[in-house]
Amino acid sequence: MHKSAAAPNGSVGSVGSVGTVETRFLDLPEPIALESGRELAGVRVAYETYGRLSAARDNVILVCHALSGDAHAAGVAASAPSAGTRDGFAAEDRDGGAGAGLGWWDGMIGPGKAFDTERYFIISTNLLGGCRGTTGPSSTNPETGHPYGPDFPVITVADMVRTQRAFLDRLGISRLAAVAGGSLGGMQALEWAILFPDQVDAVVAIASTHALHPQGVAWNAIARQAIMGDPAWQDGRYYGTGQAPDAGMGVARMVGHVTYLSGAALEAKFARRLQDGDDIRHTLREPEFAVESYLSHQAASFVKRFDANTYLYLSRALTYFDLARQHGGGSLEPALEDVKARTLLIAFSSDWLYPPVASAEIAEALGALGKPVDYHLIEAPYGHDSFLLEEARQIPIIRRFLEDGAERTTRTP
Amino acid sequence: MHKSAAAPNGSVGSVGSVGTVETRFLDLPEPIALESGRELAGVRVAYETYGRLSAARDNVILVCHALSGDAHAAGVAASAPSAGTRDGFAAEDRDGGAGAGLGWWDGMIGPGKAFDTERYFIISTNLLGGCRGTTGPSSTNPETGHPYGPDFPVITVADMVRTQRAFLDRLGISRLAAVAGGSLGGMQALEWAILFPDQVDAVVAIASTHALHPQGVAWNAIARQAIMGDPAWQDGRYYGTGQAPDAGMGVARMVGHVTYLSGAALEAKFARRLQDGDDIRHTLREPEFAVESYLSHQAASFVKRFDANTYLYLSRALTYFDLARQHGGGSLEPALEDVKARTLLIAFSSDWLYPPVASAEIAEALGALGKPVDYHLIEAPYGHDSFLLEEARQIPIIRRFLEDGAERTTRTP
Repeated sequence: MHKSAAAPNGSVGSVGSVGTVETRFLDLPEPIALESGRELAGVRVAYETYGRLSAARDNVILVCHALSGDAHAAGVAASAPSAGTRDGFAAEDRDGGAGAGLGWWDGMIGPGKAFDTERYFIISTNLLGGCRGTTGPSSTNPETGHPYGPDFPVITVADMVRTQRAFLDRLGISRLAAVAGGSLGGMQALEWAILFPDQVDAVVAIASTHALHPQGVAWNAIARQAIMGDPAWQDGRYYGTGQAPDAGMGVARMVGHVTYLSGAALEAKFARRLQDGDDIRHTLREPEFAVESYLSHQAASFVKRFDANTYLYLSRALTYFDLARQHGGGSLEPALEDVKARTLLIAFSSDWLYPPVASAEIAEALGALGKPVDYHLIEAPYGHDSFLLEEARQIPIIRRFLEDGAERTTRTP
Repeated sequence: MHKSAAAPNGSVGSVGSVGTVETRFLDLPEPIALESGRELAGVRVAYETYGRLSAARDNVILVCHALSGDAHAAGVAASAPSAGTRDGFAAEDRDGGAGAGLGWWDGMIGPGKAFDTERYFIISTNLLGGCRGTTGPSSTNPETGHPYGPDFPVITVADMVRTQRAFLDRLGISRLAAVAGGSLGGMQALEWAILFPDQVDAVVAIASTHALHPQGVAWNAIARQAIMGDPAWQDGRYYGTGQAPDAGMGVARMVGHVTYLSGAALEAKFARRLQDGDDIRHTLREPEFAVESYLSHQAASFVKRFDANTYLYLSRALTYFDLARQHGGGSLEPALEDVKARTLLIAFSSDWLYPPVASAEIAEALGALGKPVDYHLIEAPYGHDSFLLEEARQIPIIRRFLEDGAERTTRTP
């Protein structure tokens, strides 16, 4: 079970690819005790692994995905997906081309890449509440035999992390050389370092935060309202009705997309270019500007691959996430007091959804506590999506950070 | 007809108020020739006036409202409205208090205010396509006897301005001492100076632009999609069905609100304060953060007073607005070549929907053409809504600008 399903340097994929990968599944034997006080039994976890587990089981890196990702982080999917899970400009660039079916972080995971499969055993799971294999609101509720829908418990990032902990227990992995992720994935990484300080050597949190700012909370509330206000949502019980809240989900996705990109990126890519011809056509319904067509296209392709209830639950979890409130009585520094991991924070100058200031605040709090922390602000124009688009500039930073840790471990055996 | 309906310094209202005002209506005798090539017959215009028309009819200022405004710009409405038309924080501050029924620009229009009714005769109309008295998609189509709905022609800012021109002809007013507005209202003011250069002495364009940037186009596309994707929209034929796209309109309004405010303003007003108690309640449906409650409240009150089709048509018009495309073959400078008015531009540092750079570009183009232009950048934290909230700092700028013009007119009789 611990061996990688990937064929190293397989015939499919680019140089440095982990090759063809199949998503696997593991059923947790025990219920997960949730922060809400509820329990969730019969949890299944979808996962992929890349690289080889060392004999000492000390080379494990857990990779955590963001809102719309899944377990397929690297390589080429053995079962061709209906649509890629890479977001935004990245999706557009790759889905149609040779990269169809590539994992969402393929540029970062593989031989010689940031998370080097020659050295590390990388594990990627679909998170709790997801819709790509791990138990979520679209899964069958064992108590009723029907999909959970709105009966699925409201979960938190900490619940996601405890699920990952239980999952790793089943793999016989007690300790992580690193836990890494961007955005909501970075939240999970930070939560790991607080909940399980003795089991995490290093945290890599990219384009993330200790708590979403109120404007981010607002965007998420709007996205959820768009879904829940769609009559096809049917109070969350739309499974099997032949109807789904695609209209609302489309709007939610459009809101998401605009917040993931910077104004400057939209200006550079679309400006005010008309979609069709040189002049306006005086139409309400048809996309008139190129940026309108782009958003429509993104919305249409997203609703095909993503479950609306999962969107609701994950959106709620990421707005709840607040390390200071959860662990520090309202202050960040005490929340981080027990962290033992080395921390790498990367933020992007144009990211206004997860702005650099949040990473700087984490760095400052860890620094004040005398804990090892490395904060990199990358000047990049693409907004929040930079974390998927600016891979080349992150790779050396992450490699160096992980190597430093390896040396340190070697020096202090 | 030309006399003000306002009782100067009437018993109702604060010091400097224009008093109680009644909205009046005027039917245009001729059809409006629209930019789309269509004609619109039987157009009615709702309007209010404040102050007294001079014998020479040379003291007229036309005030143009933004997306959600109406003709009631100043004083206290004679017929109490169901909800104020002031937006955002301003609405919240005033609607519940002594200011209920106040016009949306009451702080700016009145004796001794920016637009001084002791000196000027101020005219405010509801714009073409509106839902507060002027002909729009909710009006009865004389050809069918039913509301226009989606049969209403797609209109532009230039169409709004030509309607205002036809309306002023009926009042016997050929020339404007100034035309003023914020946001979409500023677009109308700029369009006036280009379409009727010999009839406009001065333009006051506040928090406006010569063309919305692509991110602004995107927000508007999302808002329209939220409305049109609501099944209750019924292809725009919802009048008389007992259903209206309130859910979609609510989402559109929430998107609008967040774009009208700055992230810093939301942080200052709401931070991550919970709505109810000290801890999260693990709920998907209930507003949990104060900012979520605020947006829900704004959405609920907006759908009661505003027509969804009007929102669609005005949103489309303001995304179409592009002086360079319309009048300059793609360049701004030639578009402004015929302008004869003096121009005052005011922008706000934190306005990311109508960012200062757009006003600066207009100022630069006018300056390069040797035309008189005054550009003020006001440091203010409230985003686009600053144009309604930062009245005190605009008043002396506008008064000085208008006085300069009056002196100039006096010097060259």
